[in-house]
Amino acid sequence: MKKLLLLAFALPSLAFAQPAAADPAALRDAALREDTVAWNILEGLTTEVGQRLAGTEAEARGREWTVRKLTELGFSNVRVEPFDMPVWVRGEERAEIVSPFPQALVVTALGNSGATPARGIEAEVIGFDSVEALEAAPDAAVRGKIVFVTHNMQPNQDGSGYGPFGAPRRTGPTIASRKGAAAIVVRSIGTDHHRNPHTGVQNFAEGVRPIPAGALSIPDAEQLQRILARAGDRPVRMRLTLTPRDIGRRQSGNVIAEVPGSDPSAGVVAIGGHLDSWDLGTGAVDNAAGVAITVAAAHRIMQAGPPRRTIRIVLFGAEEVGVFGGESHFNRHRADGNVVLVGESDFGADRVWRVNFNFAPGNAALADRITALLAPLGIVRGRDRANAGADFGAWATAGVAAVDLNQDGSRYFDYHHTPDDTLDKVDPAQLRQNVAAWTAMLAAAANAPERIEAAAPAR
Amino acid sequence: MKKLLLLAFALPSLAFAQPAAADPAALRDAALREDTVAWNILEGLTTEVGQRLAGTEAEARGREWTVRKLTELGFSNVRVEPFDMPVWVRGEERAEIVSPFPQALVVTALGNSGATPARGIEAEVIGFDSVEALEAAPDAAVRGKIVFVTHNMQPNQDGSGYGPFGAPRRTGPTIASRKGAAAIVVRSIGTDHHRNPHTGVQNFAEGVRPIPAGALSIPDAEQLQRILARAGDRPVRMRLTLTPRDIGRRQSGNVIAEVPGSDPSAGVVAIGGHLDSWDLGTGAVDNAAGVAITVAAAHRIMQAGPPRRTIRIVLFGAEEVGVFGGESHFNRHRADGNVVLVGESDFGADRVWRVNFNFAPGNAALADRITALLAPLGIVRGRDRANAGADFGAWATAGVAAVDLNQDGSRYFDYHHTPDDTLDKVDPAQLRQNVAAWTAMLAAAANAPERIEAAAPAR
Repeated sequence: MKKLLLLAFALPSLAFAQPAAADPAALRDAALREDTVAWNILEGLTTEVGQRLAGTEAEARGREWTVRKLTELGFSNVRVEPFDMPVWVRGEERAEIVSPFPQALVVTALGNSGATPARGIEAEVIGFDSVEALEAAPDAAVRGKIVFVTHNMQPNQDGSGYGPFGAPRRTGPTIASRKGAAAIVVRSIGTDHHRNPHTGVQNFAEGVRPIPAGALSIPDAEQLQRILARAGDRPVRMRLTLTPRDIGRRQSGNVIAEVPGSDPSAGVVAIGGHLDSWDLGTGAVDNAAGVAITVAAAHRIMQAGPPRRTIRIVLFGAEEVGVFGGESHFNRHRADGNVVLVGESDFGADRVWRVNFNFAPGNAALADRITALLAPLGIVRGRDRANAGADFGAWATAGVAAVDLNQDGSRYFDYHHTPDDTLDKVDPAQLRQNVAAWTAMLAAAANAPERIEAAAPAR
Repeated sequence: MKKLLLLAFALPSLAFAQPAAADPAALRDAALREDTVAWNILEGLTTEVGQRLAGTEAEARGREWTVRKLTELGFSNVRVEPFDMPVWVRGEERAEIVSPFPQALVVTALGNSGATPARGIEAEVIGFDSVEALEAAPDAAVRGKIVFVTHNMQPNQDGSGYGPFGAPRRTGPTIASRKGAAAIVVRSIGTDHHRNPHTGVQNFAEGVRPIPAGALSIPDAEQLQRILARAGDRPVRMRLTLTPRDIGRRQSGNVIAEVPGSDPSAGVVAIGGHLDSWDLGTGAVDNAAGVAITVAAAHRIMQAGPPRRTIRIVLFGAEEVGVFGGESHFNRHRADGNVVLVGESDFGADRVWRVNFNFAPGNAALADRITALLAPLGIVRGRDRANAGADFGAWATAGVAAVDLNQDGSRYFDYHHTPDDTLDKVDPAQLRQNVAAWTAMLAAAANAPERIEAAAPAR
């Protein structure tokens, strides 16, 4: 069989469906047993490129590396679709308690944070348990101070803590600035206990003055809570130095590759992940993994012979800092009118545990076939409407069918956006399970004889 | 009972043994159930002082804090015994791969590391799997390069990996310098996978030129191995900046406190931990925990009424950087001739799992009584000769009886000497088990009617 596959690969015009190889279950099981494509991409991208902050030369090296790899793997129409975006880069980052208990704390700047002078600022710290408590405080109590906001996010398999417990990062800086705070530090939006702070994007609301905005590592946030409690009536004073800067508009881009389908009228199945990462780790979990998983699955389908529908891999630039790549891709290609299904892998590399669809009633049988193919991998069918992730989300909202292969998020927020997002956090067996799940879904969807359509959105 | 204990505490001259309270098993069980003294010391010292690098003002604040706390708790003869020592302090620390795969790596300087110029040095990296492989390499292959030495330390309950797998840190820098290396970086001596490097002391052998010597975090060490493997024939070049410096001799000190015994002729039982810590974390596990555990146990014995023997708590300065406090204490007090038993807690805060003795044959019954008191805590008797830890080791070597209450080391080297050595790593229930074990041992030993003597050392 290996010989036949190699032949099919070398001579695409002679390729034909291998009944055994093209069987979705057989492809799935082979991926689970022996996939090495995903690991090789994951290791290569994170080792030979490392971090890939959007709009920087590191992200550009990531695109070059990926174009070379996709070409080597035999994909068609490998290309970069560039776009421009505003770029913010990190500077010095230091926090220390000046009194009453002098000591250094570990801090990192949040995306789009304002800057302190190079020598830092020193001010009294005022602590809040939530953004609601901050919002309720009199402006006079906050003015000129360094606001500290904590939270109690816990790990959940479905990642549902990130929305509500992410508020200190997403809205805290704007609220603090409106109240006249000198700066804000939040407890990192995460679930670990390591001294690696979690960065992440935040955007000051229109007209709000950017103030320095940082995240303390979780042990440091807990330390600051104890310091505030033990200080009693004594003011707790912090010196904070954050010197990020905006460097203007730069180029980013989406990397695209295809497995041409045998039936041009059947439409395109578009899948992928994002190539950019935050700058603190090597972006293994977020999101070289998604790149590796979706490319490996498409590669396996390609090796089995051309699918009915074209499979398009889209590896987005600049997701972390504002989904600029997703927006660019949607605006550029929506009018093409040929994409019938979208799906993104962007929640790490732990096993897929659930599948969700947004299919039209007429596609119930296809959803059932996919669900049945995924069940041997331990995957259950959920009751949520698939949303296709950040980068493809606009497509699903616009009425394109989507499949979400939800990954286990129990430890995702231990590493998310931290220096600790490195290759050693990925379990090779769980990575293969992801490839198997995407392979099975793709084999079913790309070869489905029926039309694929989304359900009308709920009113 | 609480009222009676408070009375005994407030009016020591009226104190008398409470038959129930002084029962070792009852004291042990009360500690296990309800001790709060240890946690309060641990939280207070790590929060109100933080890191306590030997010979610095932070360690001095640690002594002041501890003297105040021991006095508040009602101990007698609370004092500081000062000594001088050479002090090395950390500077800037940065490592980056310049080519072929540019990226930053996380590094920290090892104790007594030499310094690079402020702008750093740039050189080719040469990697070794062990110090033996480094030793065997021709000098010409190493000269002018940055040596990288890795290892494969795994966690063990008894901590036995630290000796053999610590060689890259302890002897690597001297070997590399002798061979003309420009610098050395080692894989951190640890068992975690977080981007927090492990510092630790090393001493260049007499006459060997100090070179910059750092530890990469374990994910970064693994990354460097992959970079070397993927670079193939291309040289891997690193820029390394480490700017520590020696600041001359400064004062450190040991903090001492006592529970006076009822029988001055019965000798002294001396226990403790070390007050200093490395500068990266807050020294919760290493070794505010040992301070907290031994103080809490002695306090519980004190509250039950005076023991037969005086219990002396010694909280050592400057252990991490060369056991200067232990050496000072031994030299100052060995001639007193009254210490009959020593024991140190310096292996974190996880549960005690084993007890070892070095008792003379005539003390077999005492060892059996202690073993029986510890068994309900899940503690087994080992077959090793007790060594009393780094700070009291000289006493055991000199023929004083010792008890080792060995703690579970399975995760100790995840945090040891890293920024991650913080309060959140301590499990309050396991901390209480430690206090219970020390309380039981102290109750038995301090009140033992027999003389306590060490076995003659093995020849």
